Amino acid sequence: MFIEKDLFARHVGIELIEMAEGSAKARLKIQKHHLNGVGLTQGGVVFTLADLVFAAASNAYGPVAVAINASISFVKASTEGAVLTAEAKEVSRNRKLATYTILVTDEKEETVAIFQGMVYIKPSKK
Amino acid sequence: MFIEKDLFARHVGIELIEMAEGSAKARLKIQKHHLNGVGLTQGGVVFTLADLVFAAASNAYGPVAVAINASISFVKASTEGAVLTAEAKEVSRNRKLATYTILVTDEKEETVAIFQGMVYIKPSKK
Amino acid sequence: MFIEKDLFARHVGIELIEMAEGSAKARLKIQKHHLNGVGLTQGGVVFTLADLVFAAASNAYGPVAVAINASISFVKASTEGAVLTAEAKEVSRNRKLATYTILVTDEKEETVAIFQGMVYIKPSKK
Amino acid sequence: MFIEKDLFARHVGIELIEMAEGSAKARLKIQKHHLNGVGLTQGGVVFTLADLVFAAASNAYGPVAVAINASISFVKASTEGAVLTAEAKEVSRNRKLATYTILVTDEKEETVAIFQGMVYIKPSKK
Repeated sequence: MFIEKDLFARHVGIELIEMAEGSAKARLKIQKHHLNGVGLTQGGVVFTLADLVFAAASNAYGPVAVAINASISFVKASTEGAVLTAEAKEVSRNRKLATYTILVTDEKEETVAIFQGMVYIKPSKK
Repeated sequence: MFIEKDLFARHVGIELIEMAEGSAKARLKIQKHHLNGVGLTQGGVVFTLADLVFAAASNAYGPVAVAINASISFVKASTEGAVLTAEAKEVSRNRKLATYTILVTDEKEETVAIFQGMVYIKPSKK
Repeated sequence: MFIEKDLFARHVGIELIEMAEGSAKARLKIQKHHLNGVGLTQGGVVFTLADLVFAAASNAYGPVAVAINASISFVKASTEGAVLTAEAKEVSRNRKLATYTILVTDEKEETVAIFQGMVYIKPSKK
Repeated sequence: MFIEKDLFARHVGIELIEMAEGSAKARLKIQKHHLNGVGLTQGGVVFTLADLVFAAASNAYGPVAVAINASISFVKASTEGAVLTAEAKEVSRNRKLATYTILVTDEKEETVAIFQGMVYIKPSKK
């Protein structure tokens, strides 16, 4: 599956744990190179983790689903040593568009971020 | 300035070009490790580029500004060899909250993504 | 409670059903004056319904909570005669900021829209 | 044009001033029935004003464009007597999707809210 060939997710160090039609789960242990200038996990790291499960959950059906929109609220900071988990849940899906909610939590099961995203499903080639 | 110490931005390869109170500009040349499983620039890469100028523009005043919310619309795909530029513009700023719009364009000056973000400005320590 | 004095919610015809710390529920029967130019429920109507439970859930604690950001994804159209219900759930709350997810469903319990919002909690007057 | 038949915009009292392909402008004088429980303009009012120019700008080309996503940041409160103006600007448009930024300002030309929205363009009937 192409999600496993995501080179950027690999560069960041994200591990995809589960992937099914409409749901997915991934994990990332925060290391030094994930930090921003004040020593906290960079927003882009949290987004990328959420985005990967968003892509996995929406593409698991087969047809290519392209992210067109995402909103993220950052609610708790984290730093080196934290273990972040992202879980995607499908809110809706029709022939052209699908919507997902992704919750990012830390090892204490506290919410780190909440992400809401929409994909456009490409017409499949015949 | 702490933005220059952003380890994740360095890990991704982003170059901060300009930074002033309320505005900033950064650039990223897309390489193989920025791609997703279908060979396009990963959404997290585009977000991280936008997020860096968002952080730079909002923190240039001095007091620490923490991202609390961001929305991104992806409007054009890009791939290896593309040169993406993100520019942040301040929409509003009061004592506690500030809002920024970030436009991400490619080397043809076409829009790749638009990003809207809000920061919470921490009370400065005395 | 001041939510009950919301004149615009009354003008639109929204009925607040439940309100507790961190949660709220409201209902609206779609009538002719809620429709847009193509005969469907106007986006502003759905937003206003979601926004009311967002305000109710975040203000039920006492201190004034001001909406600073909201994202809404519209996933199913509705029209005259539909009965829309919005339910707010708290995702996170600290001293200054709180985040809510609101699900808007129709009388068939199908998702009409999903809304994610953040409030800034005003320091309480002594 | 169907935007002029928007019954909810009429119910709210919004006046559409300009409408062209990719841009639109509307105005609303805030009255008592636009206020929330603390005497300020209700968020749903500001959203509805922005949403109308979003619909006008995206539908002016002809094919029906349906709002699928919107993010709004509220940056300045207003109250009875304020005159709010919303202006839509097109960020991108392809065959299926288009993105708009809407700025809502008051009579002092200060920013009240910023709105970013995406539409799905329906295939035109032959």
